[in-house]
Amino acid sequence: MEPTTTNMSNTNNMHSQTQSHECVEIAMEVHKVVPPPHRSTLKKLKARLKETFFPDDPLRQFKGQPLKQKFILGAQYIFPILEWGPNYSFKLLKSDIVSGLTIASLAIPQGISYAKLANLPPIVGLYSSFVPPLVYAVLGSSRDLAVGPVSIASLVLGSMLRQEVSPANDTVLFLQLAFSSTFFAGLFQASLGILRLGIIIDFLSKATLIGFMAGAAIIVSLQQLKALLGITHFTPQMGLVPVLSSVFHHTNEWSWQAILMGVCFLVLLLFTRHIGIKKPKLFWVSAGAPLVSVILSTLLVFAFKAQHHGISVIGKLQEGLNPPSWNMLHFHGSHLGLVMKTGLITGILSLTEGIAVGRTFAALKNYQVDGNKEMIAIGLMNMVGSSTSCYVTTGAFSRSAVNHNAGAKTAVSNIVMAVTVMVTLLFLMPLFQYTPNVILGAIIVTAVVGLIDIPAAYHVWKIDKFDFLVLLCAFLGVIFISVQGGLAIAVSISIFKILMQITRPKTVMLGNIPGTDIYRNIRQYKEAARIPGFLILSIEASINFANSSYLNERILRWIEDYEAEEEEQTKKQSGLRFVILDLSAVSAMDTSGVSLLKDLRKAVENKGLELVLVNPLGEVMEKLQRGDEAHDVFSRPDCLFLTVGEAVASLLSTVKAQSSSHVSNMEFNRRVSPKSSFCEPEVSCL
Amino acid sequence: MEPTTTNMSNTNNMHSQTQSHECVEIAMEVHKVVPPPHRSTLKKLKARLKETFFPDDPLRQFKGQPLKQKFILGAQYIFPILEWGPNYSFKLLKSDIVSGLTIASLAIPQGISYAKLANLPPIVGLYSSFVPPLVYAVLGSSRDLAVGPVSIASLVLGSMLRQEVSPANDTVLFLQLAFSSTFFAGLFQASLGILRLGIIIDFLSKATLIGFMAGAAIIVSLQQLKALLGITHFTPQMGLVPVLSSVFHHTNEWSWQAILMGVCFLVLLLFTRHIGIKKPKLFWVSAGAPLVSVILSTLLVFAFKAQHHGISVIGKLQEGLNPPSWNMLHFHGSHLGLVMKTGLITGILSLTEGIAVGRTFAALKNYQVDGNKEMIAIGLMNMVGSSTSCYVTTGAFSRSAVNHNAGAKTAVSNIVMAVTVMVTLLFLMPLFQYTPNVILGAIIVTAVVGLIDIPAAYHVWKIDKFDFLVLLCAFLGVIFISVQGGLAIAVSISIFKILMQITRPKTVMLGNIPGTDIYRNIRQYKEAARIPGFLILSIEASINFANSSYLNERILRWIEDYEAEEEEQTKKQSGLRFVILDLSAVSAMDTSGVSLLKDLRKAVENKGLELVLVNPLGEVMEKLQRGDEAHDVFSRPDCLFLTVGEAVASLLSTVKAQSSSHVSNMEFNRRVSPKSSFCEPEVSCL
Repeated sequence: MEPTTTNMSNTNNMHSQTQSHECVEIAMEVHKVVPPPHRSTLKKLKARLKETFFPDDPLRQFKGQPLKQKFILGAQYIFPILEWGPNYSFKLLKSDIVSGLTIASLAIPQGISYAKLANLPPIVGLYSSFVPPLVYAVLGSSRDLAVGPVSIASLVLGSMLRQEVSPANDTVLFLQLAFSSTFFAGLFQASLGILRLGIIIDFLSKATLIGFMAGAAIIVSLQQLKALLGITHFTPQMGLVPVLSSVFHHTNEWSWQAILMGVCFLVLLLFTRHIGIKKPKLFWVSAGAPLVSVILSTLLVFAFKAQHHGISVIGKLQEGLNPPSWNMLHFHGSHLGLVMKTGLITGILSLTEGIAVGRTFAALKNYQVDGNKEMIAIGLMNMVGSSTSCYVTTGAFSRSAVNHNAGAKTAVSNIVMAVTVMVTLLFLMPLFQYTPNVILGAIIVTAVVGLIDIPAAYHVWKIDKFDFLVLLCAFLGVIFISVQGGLAIAVSISIFKILMQITRPKTVMLGNIPGTDIYRNIRQYKEAARIPGFLILSIEASINFANSSYLNERILRWIEDYEAEEEEQTKKQSGLRFVILDLSAVSAMDTSGVSLLKDLRKAVENKGLELVLVNPLGEVMEKLQRGDEAHDVFSRPDCLFLTVGEAVASLLSTVKAQSSSHVSNMEFNRRVSPKSSFCEPEVSCL
Repeated sequence: MEPTTTNMSNTNNMHSQTQSHECVEIAMEVHKVVPPPHRSTLKKLKARLKETFFPDDPLRQFKGQPLKQKFILGAQYIFPILEWGPNYSFKLLKSDIVSGLTIASLAIPQGISYAKLANLPPIVGLYSSFVPPLVYAVLGSSRDLAVGPVSIASLVLGSMLRQEVSPANDTVLFLQLAFSSTFFAGLFQASLGILRLGIIIDFLSKATLIGFMAGAAIIVSLQQLKALLGITHFTPQMGLVPVLSSVFHHTNEWSWQAILMGVCFLVLLLFTRHIGIKKPKLFWVSAGAPLVSVILSTLLVFAFKAQHHGISVIGKLQEGLNPPSWNMLHFHGSHLGLVMKTGLITGILSLTEGIAVGRTFAALKNYQVDGNKEMIAIGLMNMVGSSTSCYVTTGAFSRSAVNHNAGAKTAVSNIVMAVTVMVTLLFLMPLFQYTPNVILGAIIVTAVVGLIDIPAAYHVWKIDKFDFLVLLCAFLGVIFISVQGGLAIAVSISIFKILMQITRPKTVMLGNIPGTDIYRNIRQYKEAARIPGFLILSIEASINFANSSYLNERILRWIEDYEAEEEEQTKKQSGLRFVILDLSAVSAMDTSGVSLLKDLRKAVENKGLELVLVNPLGEVMEKLQRGDEAHDVFSRPDCLFLTVGEAVASLLSTVKAQSSSHVSNMEFNRRVSPKSSFCEPEVSCL
């Protein structure tokens, strides 16, 4: 790469030098704009589809491998356990046992609590912490994900199904619908993965999620007032208003024993949670606290026979492993629509959480998780779960953080957790008979309080006010309308914002940064100066049908404003000669874009000016050429340049050459002959 | 603007010169990236709203004017007739009378025909050519628009209302619904104009319209087979399949007299149309042909008493001007939903045609039409029309073209046309008693045949295959599903395409064009060369929640691919040191974008590389700064540059200074200490 400074110094000197050239010949050495090498439509379509659905190029590793190796790689691709399994060591096992036992101590009380949140029998929460982790250990590619039921999916599942079926009166039907929803959630998740449609979860922006989760946390916490206050007649609705009104209309049902116990354990749990956050090394304090609370409170109830004194307890739980439930799945009947809708929404929500958790910890430990593979793993896990008495599960954030802090190395920690839960299911269930419901409420509140992330919300407010609006809508929608309503509103507003950005793209005026041939927005760079006779605009978006008529009007207004301003300042006719459109930021264009540039060219010529294009990118250049019926345009070097600097230099030198031979000053009496172009007035660029 | 070549030659020489500098100090004179001057959120919101809803800045002309002048301008703004009226001259009147009479001769037969197309009494078509043109003459700002009923809106109105009410059995109710739909169409159009929501019609892309209009033309023509073949039992459905099956199931009803007459006049009309297109000066041949055909065929029927020989005629028509119809408007009742939907769709369609026609001729004559003002004018025209027995009207393309060719100068030609129609309504109605329906069918077919624009469709195919797909969907949807169904499908696909472009933005690798400091896509410019040690990527879209996780994965894959390729070529460790992200084409960013850059930075550092940003635009720069909690990042000049050239030059000189003092070659043993950064390893750019 040898330095050749000739061209650059040319470009820089052009402002002062007046060079005399022939009319048609272009003065400077300028670089030609070329379209990208030709590719057939089919090839382009293939590339586009690949980029859309296989952006991670999953078959890359198979290339050039022998058949046997391909087979092994394929098996490893489908079952990641085959990848890390063979190298598994005793050292890793030790870490995994520690972390597995830790998350099990968290999973057991949380499982029972979340099942209650979903209006399901508590034991279903334990079932859901047994089978799904085993499935994930085989199929999942994250090393830190701790699988089990999560608060938001539990809440949504319970609240959506309750719209049609009462969990108290139709317990069996409700359970059937929950398993069926789980099946559809899994089917939907796995399909997204197989069809490579992970895009869909990208439409839940971070701002939406922050608002949504904070709202859901409040809704969930409000539901716990039933247990924490010992109320028996509680509203079945979820909204802020009905719950609070229900709470204050049943003050006579408040039980001081429940309140006392609840407040004590809530304080204990929140305090240990605080310790866990402040000192990550003491993670076991917060991880073990729920189990300790359960044991303590159960002992207290047992000792004081508190179940007869205003404290409700879980009651007798069945012993034994997950019973099969495939005969309980509904694939037809009047509730099918509800079940599919519930599956869809809980599926998306749990997938979002699972993928986000997986990515977060993968980034921390510097390994990759494959989004689509994770979707398939989570989906299959839920499908298997739905036929073994489990409801919707995913990778839970709080539990995975504990898992990570406890030193989990592989998915074996999930297996250890599952085995621990299995032992509990087989032998320890009678111990939970006297566990008070109030303690489950306290555990849930402690778990969801972390979902209210005020610093993150403030961060969003600081960076982008519109994102904050989305956040706020999600939050208020969830607490005042409904969980799925708030989500729908936030997603709609986010997409609406993007569409608005497209229909009203930015156009900015560029100016020259003195001493360089760099051209930048004159509003952003105060030192950037206009070049007399030139209006340089940059279009900062793809041009398509939704914005072409706006861009047409806007650019013409730029020209009018520029001329008016100049005429006002100089008190004589504007010397504007060239309108340069910098297309560097126009990444795509459709037929409307081609028409826009043609129309614009006509309009600009009618004003006696010339339109010059700079740096059309590959696709745009291709379409411009194809839309150019005359076939003589892009061979003309004075309408199309590679950089704004070269365009200005070249045009300026042509003008000077012209003006020295034809006219004496820069005023080209263009008003007199509005169609006059310098060299070839008949040929137009477009 | 004095040329200062120092900086540029520095930038160019850097590849060959090895300069020794101190570690922290940056070698080259580089230009700082600055955020735009601070504006408050409120100001930004105001600017944004103004650009969204008032892109044409309608109040511009009022600025700085005295109060009286403001009042006059305001009146002229609302009633454009006040603008051109005072200067109206006899010479203009002469032109307008000629063109007015010409379009009247076209409007009368077309009015009757289109009313039949909408399943309305023929006289409603004439009513609709009387009042609306008068209203438009006062309110409209186009000088060429010829107002009246149009084929597509007539078709859609008739077919949508026929879904619920039979025009044959419930004539009065059908008429009431038609007027009510017209009222809602007008209300909707005027509201769009007042609320400045003209954006909505931008979502009908040109490709959609080409396909839609061709499909509608075929549907309309098929409907004329009833009259042209003289069939009495015709299907009430609109689709291609039912109509053709109805035609061939009633071959016994075909009347040779109707077919003979129809074919003769159809040939005559198509021939005169052809003349009109080939020789625009002979526009009066095609403009007068329909009226001549009507007169001729009426005389023929009258002379041969053909109404008794298989040729159906219009029958007796009422004389007199438009009766009032405001008492016929439905604002409640069971059909309200249908009426509003019909009003919405016919409103959008007729508005699209009217605005497009106005803009086309305004561009030809080099004057401006204000889209929002036109919407209000067309909307009020329809609202007034709905209470004077008119149905949906707008500026018709074919009639406006005739108007333009006949030399219309102002909206007075519309007044002349209206007066001629008035005379017809008052005195000439009995003459139409024997006009055969077959001639109306021939007139409609001739009018709509021009809507099938095959060259335009081919042009779309040539430029953009995806746009052609949209066109095809609109076309097939209209002829096989329904008129509004086809439209909905096409619009959905168009929007889906835009959303796909957003979720999968392009990222391209840039290379240096030898001898310059220009960096361009290496796929497009074959001569562009990579710089050893640098991976330069350009992101060609706004960054938002819908694409940030894709971009994260994609950029990391770029890095992996680059390293793998280099390692394969050189058979040693990749010498990649810097990843430069050119943000010149990123016009907007939300909070997800800020997180993306932070995450990316971490990931890149984990690989032992450095992430460098180039040319963030105003909004992006602002958000980056606000997202930068540490407050120490953008003061560091080695993470942020104004151009790729300066970034490469500056980083390269730093590296060389480093390598000459620390290490002997370009391989920075970065694998050994993956976190090593040259100067300040602890401080990160983001």
